[in-house]
Amino acid sequence: MSSSLLKQRVRFAPYLDRVKSAADVVPLFKTGNALGWSGFTGVGAPKVVPQALADHVEQNSLQGKLRFDLFVGASAGPEEARWAELDMIARRSPHQVGKPIASAINQGRIQFFDKHLSMFPQDLTYGFYSRDKPLGAPILDYAIIEATAIKEDGSIVPGPSVGASPEFVAVADKVIVEVNTATQSFEGIHDIDMPINPPHRPPYPYISVDHRCGVDSIAVDPAKVVAIVESNQRDKVPPNHPSDATSRAIAAHLIEFLEHEVAFGRLPKNLHPLQSGIGNIANAVIEGLSSASFQNLTVWTEVLQDSFLDLFENGSLDYATATSIRLTEPGFKRFFDNWDDYSKKLCLRSQVVSNSPEIIRRLGVIAMNTPVEVDIYAHANSTNVSGSRMLNGLGGSADFLRNAKLSIMHTPCARPSKTDPTGISTIVPMASHVDQTEHDLDVVVTDQGLADLRGLSPTERAREIINHCAHPEYQPILMDYLEKSEFYARKNKCMHEPHMLKNAHKFHINLAEKGTMKVDSWD
Amino acid sequence: MSSSLLKQRVRFAPYLDRVKSAADVVPLFKTGNALGWSGFTGVGAPKVVPQALADHVEQNSLQGKLRFDLFVGASAGPEEARWAELDMIARRSPHQVGKPIASAINQGRIQFFDKHLSMFPQDLTYGFYSRDKPLGAPILDYAIIEATAIKEDGSIVPGPSVGASPEFVAVADKVIVEVNTATQSFEGIHDIDMPINPPHRPPYPYISVDHRCGVDSIAVDPAKVVAIVESNQRDKVPPNHPSDATSRAIAAHLIEFLEHEVAFGRLPKNLHPLQSGIGNIANAVIEGLSSASFQNLTVWTEVLQDSFLDLFENGSLDYATATSIRLTEPGFKRFFDNWDDYSKKLCLRSQVVSNSPEIIRRLGVIAMNTPVEVDIYAHANSTNVSGSRMLNGLGGSADFLRNAKLSIMHTPCARPSKTDPTGISTIVPMASHVDQTEHDLDVVVTDQGLADLRGLSPTERAREIINHCAHPEYQPILMDYLEKSEFYARKNKCMHEPHMLKNAHKFHINLAEKGTMKVDSWD
Repeated sequence: MSSSLLKQRVRFAPYLDRVKSAADVVPLFKTGNALGWSGFTGVGAPKVVPQALADHVEQNSLQGKLRFDLFVGASAGPEEARWAELDMIARRSPHQVGKPIASAINQGRIQFFDKHLSMFPQDLTYGFYSRDKPLGAPILDYAIIEATAIKEDGSIVPGPSVGASPEFVAVADKVIVEVNTATQSFEGIHDIDMPINPPHRPPYPYISVDHRCGVDSIAVDPAKVVAIVESNQRDKVPPNHPSDATSRAIAAHLIEFLEHEVAFGRLPKNLHPLQSGIGNIANAVIEGLSSASFQNLTVWTEVLQDSFLDLFENGSLDYATATSIRLTEPGFKRFFDNWDDYSKKLCLRSQVVSNSPEIIRRLGVIAMNTPVEVDIYAHANSTNVSGSRMLNGLGGSADFLRNAKLSIMHTPCARPSKTDPTGISTIVPMASHVDQTEHDLDVVVTDQGLADLRGLSPTERAREIINHCAHPEYQPILMDYLEKSEFYARKNKCMHEPHMLKNAHKFHINLAEKGTMKVDSWD
Repeated sequence: MSSSLLKQRVRFAPYLDRVKSAADVVPLFKTGNALGWSGFTGVGAPKVVPQALADHVEQNSLQGKLRFDLFVGASAGPEEARWAELDMIARRSPHQVGKPIASAINQGRIQFFDKHLSMFPQDLTYGFYSRDKPLGAPILDYAIIEATAIKEDGSIVPGPSVGASPEFVAVADKVIVEVNTATQSFEGIHDIDMPINPPHRPPYPYISVDHRCGVDSIAVDPAKVVAIVESNQRDKVPPNHPSDATSRAIAAHLIEFLEHEVAFGRLPKNLHPLQSGIGNIANAVIEGLSSASFQNLTVWTEVLQDSFLDLFENGSLDYATATSIRLTEPGFKRFFDNWDDYSKKLCLRSQVVSNSPEIIRRLGVIAMNTPVEVDIYAHANSTNVSGSRMLNGLGGSADFLRNAKLSIMHTPCARPSKTDPTGISTIVPMASHVDQTEHDLDVVVTDQGLADLRGLSPTERAREIINHCAHPEYQPILMDYLEKSEFYARKNKCMHEPHMLKNAHKFHINLAEKGTMKVDSWD
């Protein structure tokens, strides 16, 4: 029973015999199966099959009895949150978004590991995550991939994200394709590299953001495709966080810095390709760029948001590429209304390519990310609040920050705790968890100001960060920590990166005990 | 006054008019100059000019009055130690070896920053380390480069290391070449890439360890060459650390693991290109590989040592490439006695290439490094003892460990303190400094055993590391830390990576106060 829309989208006839409803495929799944879902940053993930499985668990009280190892390029949509609530996820990697799944991880119900998004798909294809299986067993039991079309050769045209789908399809024993007929076809916008492993891996040839030499669909052995399921559900992306005074202050410092770098000849007038994350600071930066004098900008990033459409429309952005285009419903409407224009000015790549250290370094990308906290020596925590509580995972932050020409972290200088409007300093003596090392950050910027760390020793960096980035209430406390640490370090001849290990996490301990990081003394 | 040997080596006639003694060039230098020296891991660095400058300082009591910003690809020879003792170094990057220089850093007399060796030369050419200079000022005042020959076009043929010399020569205002006539010419063994910066940087084309498509000498504008100085001093490399029972036990676990990976098809029979560091564990691993059944091995690393000559000679090594060949005097003799053979089986590249994330990832390198300490969640400290005291610097450890197919850290499970033969556990609750993150390590191996961390969540990793790698005396202490941390984390819903921040560095504090990391209790 396939709709005429479905027949239009599926141009490989043999698949039409394999059309099934989502409920039909539920019996295929066994507890313990390893699954790969398409999707990246909440768009392009399968919907109706995961929902049917969740319904099945709910209706038959199978919570905790039908559990899977779930791999998604980054985060999927609300379906994985529902799976987490129904205790259907035993193991999860490499990234997740949404309260229910983070809760399950932090309650110890899901074994989660976060991994560089450029590296996760290749490590999966190496067999690293299936090493407990018998020799010859498949790496994934099923890949469930959302498509917006199927080509004449049976290959899969993804939707708004490519992510790790090429790798999932390559290593899955069986493939289920959800053909999404509720959205338009994205055919023509993808530039995909299928995985090739060492010792046969060639260079990625890309030498500019608009360089396309991949394929426009994901090749799959048709024998592996066990079901084609029609989906009529669109992606649901929550509204963007608007910029506010704090994020605009951060953006202003950053724009001033970039203008300075151009003036000193360390950046060309059109900068280098930009990478920017998700959230209100990222949006403020994009707004700032669009109202500054920069022209002919380019973007090499992992996810495109509505704000980039504004940059296109005001003429300052020439080309953008990512692995995902995560638009709101009005955003997607603008996008498809101007498809002829946009489809020439952007493309979606495999996440191993969008996040490739090779290309990020070659192009000299300017990377911008938001941390949980940064310490005085420029180690940054991107993942674990107070060292232990997982937020979303590492994502591509380290792919970009390690390899970019300019590695920038931006954050408000302080955040409210329950009892103190500035109870949490984002500048701390020692990061409670380290994802980005002191060797990886060039610039830290807060609403207070900007610290340019390039070429500085750790103690020089500390003064730059404390004086320019910390909230005024925390500046004397941090300087006191630094000076006392230096006093002890001078005596003990360890002046490279002075710390008082006894007090290094006192900000966090004070926060837990007294509701604020404002410690009374270091004695 | 040039020797006949010098005239043989210098094939560009105009340079012969610029031959000077080392003493002649001393007046060229001004305090505050930024200098780039050739050299990497103690070989190929300039000798007679630095010595003449040190003599000048010593004879004229200029300690602390003639000071330089000193950049070397990695470490230079004993000359930089002497400079440190004479207080001639104001600033130093990105790596150093030797007690006097480490002491000066740890006393706060030298501002040192360590940076990924693949990244340091490019950041230098970007102008990141000279950003306080006026617009148009040179990045380096002088490059002092050891050559073993000068070609007809005036280009420089380096000696046993390439390092960052291509970048130093490219950005220096003036170049001084020390032509070393005490060693044979290394002409023909180099494969050099000159720097090209974004947005014009092409892919590095290398697709195998023996792939050569660079140039065989360092191009230089002859107008910049202000002096040719003859040097008659060989490199002095201390004897290698022999393997011992501990390092052989580590190597045995590692070889068994590699054999297992081959059996399961995750590595080919000849493995993938190997990267290995310096020291007795690295030597034991190379010995172990050479007595195991592996054939047709290849090496892609930053420094080659005597042990690789053994691998060549017993026929198990096909090709090796690095940026430095750091041999002992008997090693260099073996090398030159078999030059015709070796010069076909190895080549020396720019350090941006030997340590390139792009190529390390493409080739699927197997990276092996020794840390200061590793924590239970697999963060590793490569640089700062007890968080603060600098050893040598990051080196290329993170270039390789972040990008390798298999990222391995090997270390004895315990080291002696002054009062306890196992007073220092290399497995700690929380690393006191983080250079390699939990996202970067696949395997940790000690003389106790091997922890395979691939695909594990943090709490699974912790059990694998404690049970397989920690010293038996520390196993119950670490397991107690983990379980108590989990107890609190369960209550506070932060079970992803449980820590007790109050106690996280108690091993180190106990060591400082009581001479051992064996803590009595976690309460």
